[in-house]
Amino acid sequence: MATSVSPLAPQTVPDMPEITGVKLATAAAGIRYANRTDVLLAVFDKGTSAAGVFTRSKCPSAPVEWCRARLKGKTARALVVNSGNANAFTGKTGRASTKLTAQIAAKAVGCGVNDIYLASTGVIGEPLDATKFNGVLDTLASHAVPGGFLNAAKAIMTTDTFPKVATARTSLGKAKVTINGIAKGAGMIAPDMATMLSFVFTDAPITAPVLQKLLKESVVDTFNAVTVDGDTSTSDTLLAFATGAAAKNGAPKITRASDPRLKGFRKALGMVLADLAEQVARDGEGARKLVEITVEGAVSKASARKIAMSIANSPLVKTAIAGEDANWGRVVMAVGKAGEPANRDKLSIWFGGIRVAHRGARDPAYDEARVSAAMKNPKIPLKVNLGLGRGRDRVLTCDLTKEYVAINGDYRS
Amino acid sequence: MATSVSPLAPQTVPDMPEITGVKLATAAAGIRYANRTDVLLAVFDKGTSAAGVFTRSKCPSAPVEWCRARLKGKTARALVVNSGNANAFTGKTGRASTKLTAQIAAKAVGCGVNDIYLASTGVIGEPLDATKFNGVLDTLASHAVPGGFLNAAKAIMTTDTFPKVATARTSLGKAKVTINGIAKGAGMIAPDMATMLSFVFTDAPITAPVLQKLLKESVVDTFNAVTVDGDTSTSDTLLAFATGAAAKNGAPKITRASDPRLKGFRKALGMVLADLAEQVARDGEGARKLVEITVEGAVSKASARKIAMSIANSPLVKTAIAGEDANWGRVVMAVGKAGEPANRDKLSIWFGGIRVAHRGARDPAYDEARVSAAMKNPKIPLKVNLGLGRGRDRVLTCDLTKEYVAINGDYRS
Repeated sequence: MATSVSPLAPQTVPDMPEITGVKLATAAAGIRYANRTDVLLAVFDKGTSAAGVFTRSKCPSAPVEWCRARLKGKTARALVVNSGNANAFTGKTGRASTKLTAQIAAKAVGCGVNDIYLASTGVIGEPLDATKFNGVLDTLASHAVPGGFLNAAKAIMTTDTFPKVATARTSLGKAKVTINGIAKGAGMIAPDMATMLSFVFTDAPITAPVLQKLLKESVVDTFNAVTVDGDTSTSDTLLAFATGAAAKNGAPKITRASDPRLKGFRKALGMVLADLAEQVARDGEGARKLVEITVEGAVSKASARKIAMSIANSPLVKTAIAGEDANWGRVVMAVGKAGEPANRDKLSIWFGGIRVAHRGARDPAYDEARVSAAMKNPKIPLKVNLGLGRGRDRVLTCDLTKEYVAINGDYRS
Repeated sequence: MATSVSPLAPQTVPDMPEITGVKLATAAAGIRYANRTDVLLAVFDKGTSAAGVFTRSKCPSAPVEWCRARLKGKTARALVVNSGNANAFTGKTGRASTKLTAQIAAKAVGCGVNDIYLASTGVIGEPLDATKFNGVLDTLASHAVPGGFLNAAKAIMTTDTFPKVATARTSLGKAKVTINGIAKGAGMIAPDMATMLSFVFTDAPITAPVLQKLLKESVVDTFNAVTVDGDTSTSDTLLAFATGAAAKNGAPKITRASDPRLKGFRKALGMVLADLAEQVARDGEGARKLVEITVEGAVSKASARKIAMSIANSPLVKTAIAGEDANWGRVVMAVGKAGEPANRDKLSIWFGGIRVAHRGARDPAYDEARVSAAMKNPKIPLKVNLGLGRGRDRVLTCDLTKEYVAINGDYRS
């Protein structure tokens, strides 16, 4: 995808430390793209626990079904990700393809097929020729080395204009542990999950059920609070792998989600996921503005979320922001259509921190020139106060530009 | 709005007959636009019954609230419509403005304010200066004449690229009766209602409760089955006025919705609304393709409707159609995200009558060249069979083009 890097891309890319127990390798298998890597193999030490959260699509991809079934085993030895073909809506061929890929990977790594996790992203509905992994995964397994997370993030890109990585370091007991994450996803982004693919790796010794619980908690206000176009992918996958290697440094083995020693880890995991989720919004197809929508004064957090998402997914709100127009009338429209409790005469709306509407009408002090200036910024905070209760929520989205239409009118995703 | 006429505009405009008991006049009041009409006054003979269906927005416009309150009276003597300003989210000023407009109209026509119906369309959140109607409505009332429906349709346009009119003639008892309709609406179109404004006039002698029931029934598969961008307006209004003048020609007075003599009228009303609703989709902002989505084999009609709307509102499906790409993978995505019962392995999908996917995978006989040719047509039938039950539904939408973004990134609606 020869598009230029999003103007909203982060200014700096963090140094991604190694995670003991995780080795990575990438290759160009020619699945769809020429002259770029399109396969990632992550190999995990024995004893690695796994957790996952997936799309709620009623028509999930074959790899999503594969991973869901594997999670019952709670352990992982390898992850294979390919870009260019999503292996979604490929029927029996798709199921056979995941099985063959897992078999090739299991042989290459030297483990059972049930410890292999798979993810695919790209075109839907085209058969994925798993024989292309023959040889490739063998080579990758023998070349896999600690580190290389940025390259891993590059290998899983599709219409992304920049690779997405995040890292955090925290304490578990007296030991330091690291959490690394990579993600891809630029269109077909909506809860749940809000990214097409994301993978998190840590050396913390955390059992699979606890890791699963932490992951589920952490997506609520991160990946599930991001939308680009309201379209939910068939392939959305977030997997977490905990090698437990930090136990050697004295990290305690965590077997209960209520363990108070998890406080720092929980926070750090949330930060990594929030960072990756924001990068997904910043790389929304054709995005020129990052839009942070805060809804306050709703009857509940769930109600605030629905209203925030109604605003975030409104084509009219998104095109207005693309046009740098603080069109609060369209925000009223989006609040009204959400179907949640709202009272027109109690509504207040802010663009860029400036109140433009108050209690059901234009703010008397509303200075259009000042707001227009604020709308030129790359990040647009948009706040709505419903004046009904204490429910509050925040979601991220981007504007809707002609480039979104161009990207999706040409590329068969 | 100096945009060129939609390529999907109907080739011919019907001759709109007069409706006895309805007089129309339009004027240029300079509410927002220069050099065009922007006010419509319809004057009805005494004894005219009224019915209405409105937006389900929780933040309706002041005129919507005005009309809802008026319908309790069941009778109408005049309708005032302005374009350019929606008088929505205008707080107390908005309520005062509707009242003043009704007072001016009532004086001009010589009736009580409760027999005045109002509708406004255009910018949201800007105060509507009702004093602009002073004098104007007087003049209109004295100049109102039978006929002139096409001019009426022109006066209520905003981003519409062509005026929308439809007419039908049917029998009621032994008498002929006529139904005329006009509509406007090009963006911010979604159920319920699917048009911003539409007005239907008939000389049939039908009581208000019966007219209300017929109208409610008839919107289900017409206006409520159309979407342009999934954004529900604060102002969506459909009003029907029955003058009863055909009673002089022997038409029976209809007082029960179950009256078998209504058969022809019911069908004709449905046809007029369906015609207008399709014209709204054909004039979707920036539309280049009319898309007719049929969902079959769902567990119920309601389920089929939700899935059809999920497809119709998917930006990825709409941009693919703009790119003349029969991207059935995105249709699978939209089916999957609807949250309704669906089984990937039973899904079949047709574009332009050609089956491209069958039982969960690409149709073996799928000829991309043939489908590509079909995608070049201005009307794209898209059919999904879920293979689960007998539920069936049909909705209309249009594609999502760069012009939609341009129109809505520039125009403050």
